[in-house]
Amino acid sequence: MPQPPIRIAIAGALGRMGRQMTDAVRVDPRLALAARFHRPGAVGDGLVSREEALAMADVVIDFTTPAASVDLARICAERGGPALVIGSTGFDATELAAIADAAKTIAIVRSGSFSLGLNMLVGLVEQAARALDPDDWDVEIVEAHHRHKVDAPSGTALMLGHAAAGGRGIDLETVARRARDGAIGARPPGEIGFAVVRGGSIVGEHSVSFCAEGELVTLSHAAGDRVMFARGAIAAALWLEGRPPGEYDMRDVLGFGAP
Amino acid sequence: MPQPPIRIAIAGALGRMGRQMTDAVRVDPRLALAARFHRPGAVGDGLVSREEALAMADVVIDFTTPAASVDLARICAERGGPALVIGSTGFDATELAAIADAAKTIAIVRSGSFSLGLNMLVGLVEQAARALDPDDWDVEIVEAHHRHKVDAPSGTALMLGHAAAGGRGIDLETVARRARDGAIGARPPGEIGFAVVRGGSIVGEHSVSFCAEGELVTLSHAAGDRVMFARGAIAAALWLEGRPPGEYDMRDVLGFGAP
Amino acid sequence: MPQPPIRIAIAGALGRMGRQMTDAVRVDPRLALAARFHRPGAVGDGLVSREEALAMADVVIDFTTPAASVDLARICAERGGPALVIGSTGFDATELAAIADAAKTIAIVRSGSFSLGLNMLVGLVEQAARALDPDDWDVEIVEAHHRHKVDAPSGTALMLGHAAAGGRGIDLETVARRARDGAIGARPPGEIGFAVVRGGSIVGEHSVSFCAEGELVTLSHAAGDRVMFARGAIAAALWLEGRPPGEYDMRDVLGFGAP
Amino acid sequence: MPQPPIRIAIAGALGRMGRQMTDAVRVDPRLALAARFHRPGAVGDGLVSREEALAMADVVIDFTTPAASVDLARICAERGGPALVIGSTGFDATELAAIADAAKTIAIVRSGSFSLGLNMLVGLVEQAARALDPDDWDVEIVEAHHRHKVDAPSGTALMLGHAAAGGRGIDLETVARRARDGAIGARPPGEIGFAVVRGGSIVGEHSVSFCAEGELVTLSHAAGDRVMFARGAIAAALWLEGRPPGEYDMRDVLGFGAP
Repeated sequence: MPQPPIRIAIAGALGRMGRQMTDAVRVDPRLALAARFHRPGAVGDGLVSREEALAMADVVIDFTTPAASVDLARICAERGGPALVIGSTGFDATELAAIADAAKTIAIVRSGSFSLGLNMLVGLVEQAARALDPDDWDVEIVEAHHRHKVDAPSGTALMLGHAAAGGRGIDLETVARRARDGAIGARPPGEIGFAVVRGGSIVGEHSVSFCAEGELVTLSHAAGDRVMFARGAIAAALWLEGRPPGEYDMRDVLGFGAP
Repeated sequence: MPQPPIRIAIAGALGRMGRQMTDAVRVDPRLALAARFHRPGAVGDGLVSREEALAMADVVIDFTTPAASVDLARICAERGGPALVIGSTGFDATELAAIADAAKTIAIVRSGSFSLGLNMLVGLVEQAARALDPDDWDVEIVEAHHRHKVDAPSGTALMLGHAAAGGRGIDLETVARRARDGAIGARPPGEIGFAVVRGGSIVGEHSVSFCAEGELVTLSHAAGDRVMFARGAIAAALWLEGRPPGEYDMRDVLGFGAP
Repeated sequence: MPQPPIRIAIAGALGRMGRQMTDAVRVDPRLALAARFHRPGAVGDGLVSREEALAMADVVIDFTTPAASVDLARICAERGGPALVIGSTGFDATELAAIADAAKTIAIVRSGSFSLGLNMLVGLVEQAARALDPDDWDVEIVEAHHRHKVDAPSGTALMLGHAAAGGRGIDLETVARRARDGAIGARPPGEIGFAVVRGGSIVGEHSVSFCAEGELVTLSHAAGDRVMFARGAIAAALWLEGRPPGEYDMRDVLGFGAP
Repeated sequence: MPQPPIRIAIAGALGRMGRQMTDAVRVDPRLALAARFHRPGAVGDGLVSREEALAMADVVIDFTTPAASVDLARICAERGGPALVIGSTGFDATELAAIADAAKTIAIVRSGSFSLGLNMLVGLVEQAARALDPDDWDVEIVEAHHRHKVDAPSGTALMLGHAAAGGRGIDLETVARRARDGAIGARPPGEIGFAVVRGGSIVGEHSVSFCAEGELVTLSHAAGDRVMFARGAIAAALWLEGRPPGEYDMRDVLGFGAP
């Protein structure tokens, strides 16, 4: 017998991600779009108040601002639900503590990126780094982005570097080689190298190679468009069904928790 | 305090892999080349008899024939050691049963391929397939080999396909799409596709892609030369130190056992 | 001294490509958007009649239908201009003859794909195939598209195959290997192989590899979105400035004409 | 009617490339191994004197030292032949002038790398760079080599950069971006970027990407082993048959001469 659909409320429903989440929830048979709300006073287009929305939902999907998310988490904890999927970014330490506090009462999935593929890649890289002897296997990370990106390496490339270093039980800062130019000398064992490509409209490509004598393993991810974030948020909402209180991330959703 | 090196005996020492293993053991400070033997009657070049070799070794590395490996496993079991790394291929069911029987008494790592990278790839593919929803993520396997290879897809490509299907809890035969040509229609969800490239002297390249709306994860392996097999056999020998009796494979050596 | 901008009229201005061309012309300082027209009777939104538009333009960019394009070409030829960039597809032999007839009087660039990158790739593949000995270099073409594509190999992959075969002075049909499965035997010299990947939302990727003993050259193209077609049409319009009558294609625009 | 085989003499026949060339010439039906010689006084193993060798050959293949090559070229010019394929490297200006002087009388192909694929790639990159507007297409060069390589970017990567810059009619030094790390800002139009990967035993991989809004063209080369150099030297020897005096390079052999 099919399960009844999970009832979803969308916070920040008039924002870019709010609209995209609305579209994605509407077409997914496992979900029911129960309510949509925006900041206090926003009306029309089927919006309801936050209080009404919370009363109708099993899970709230929230891509808003740190302040709004903290407020929402506190209210949901006081009410004893619903569960939360939080995709806002830029929290400070105080705000993170408030989220953690709410997670003692309700279940929350919070992530800086809801790409399922990228989160999985991070988990696979960590495992591979743990399994392979650093004296034999050199780790090299290559990332490519569009011509407008102003920093390098990308935050995601560094996250992958931290995963590889973590798998080896070392600190990335002590082994990172962020650029190579000139008389670089032979590659020291254990080094984790970064290489950066910038051009055109590349949305984001990351690869992590493990290079040994005579063989090479490469784990990579290519991003196309923001649809992938909506899919990840929906996976998180489905995963939250019946989950005990706690703060989770996308690696938990994927079943790639602590090894 | 450094551990004493593990004492290695090489079976089939005059064969191609036997010679390569000899070279690899000699330069590895964690190992001591204790003895080399070949078939009965083979003499010279520092060879000893099998009995002498077994008496001097902690682990025997054996790339020979099914019959010779079965005989070796039986003798080692009767003697209560040494442990075995078996890289021979082509065992029939009776021979496999004999190996399993010996593994009740001694520890044996047996594998059809000692590439650490490839064995790890198989484990990562299985995990990724388990974590990602088949309705969203299409699995595609591409393999490339030299122009002399006479079968397609490669055995390794099929092994990767079985890993993906296994991660999804289904049988590869029911979902494999081994070629596409003409009016193929839209891709059915759940299908696992294969594509084959043949050219030049490509030693062996395999990639498994998980393709969703807006993102793509690719896990791949490129083989260069047979050095990789020697490294894997050495990793197995090191891993066997102090291991209880049993038959193991390279996924155990890598720590990618049953999930 | 900067040249005055080339005056562009957009045919089919309310269609999808017509709107995209309008946007692209508006932001290009080398061009002036002189007029926009749609089918007879279409009014509003700044549209003018076709006759008015032709009187104001140096070049008309036309992504419409074969019938409309043939009619437009005939009228422009009678008037002695303007020049035409035609991106409509699906012409029959009679229609192609009418276009060729008009090209005796005016300059026309017509192409089935205005991707500069893809057209360049075709030219490079032809040259590479001409330069490399078929007995040493195996040609392999791999294409990947989204899960909804119903035919294989893609038309573009076949076009690349024809370019490679043409460079070798042979007919693709006599050497194409469109799928490999089972006991395929060793690869015959001269064969041109195709491999097909289908998954997710891949817009279109094509690669042509030339594989020899010990080395491999790969020429590839990845498509992201339709912006690339607008850029190609604009390059064609700029190239037409001062060009004598004739029917040209994108290889002419790129300077990759007959070798 | 089949042509008679071209008679080849091998200089430096006891060196590594000399031995490899000997093997390669022996199995090629288009060639006859006419003579092998090494430095004066070297005897045995079928070696003859240089004078004897020159009298028996149509083409000499010479992978030796600059001094030996210059001496050989001078002698061949005095004798009025045979033609020369010179693969020695490290010539100074005086030596290069002496080679050029000999090339007034005899035909010489000289190259720093006899890889046909790599030489072709250089030619294709130059053409692509000439055809594509630098304001729209960003050039990015990625190279990967084994862990023992001590300089970066590789000489071949820089050669590809010079080819791209040359195709655009500019000087590489003015546009090269040899590393990216930190707050790099948006990518300037016209920049040619380099990225470097070091790991394992990678023999040598180079790719040149042309990245625009919505599309990407990548031209790449992967080296496996030194067999490729022998194939290129043989192609040069075959191409020299009946060629007028002059100094040529591998781009001439490939038919990718000055555009």
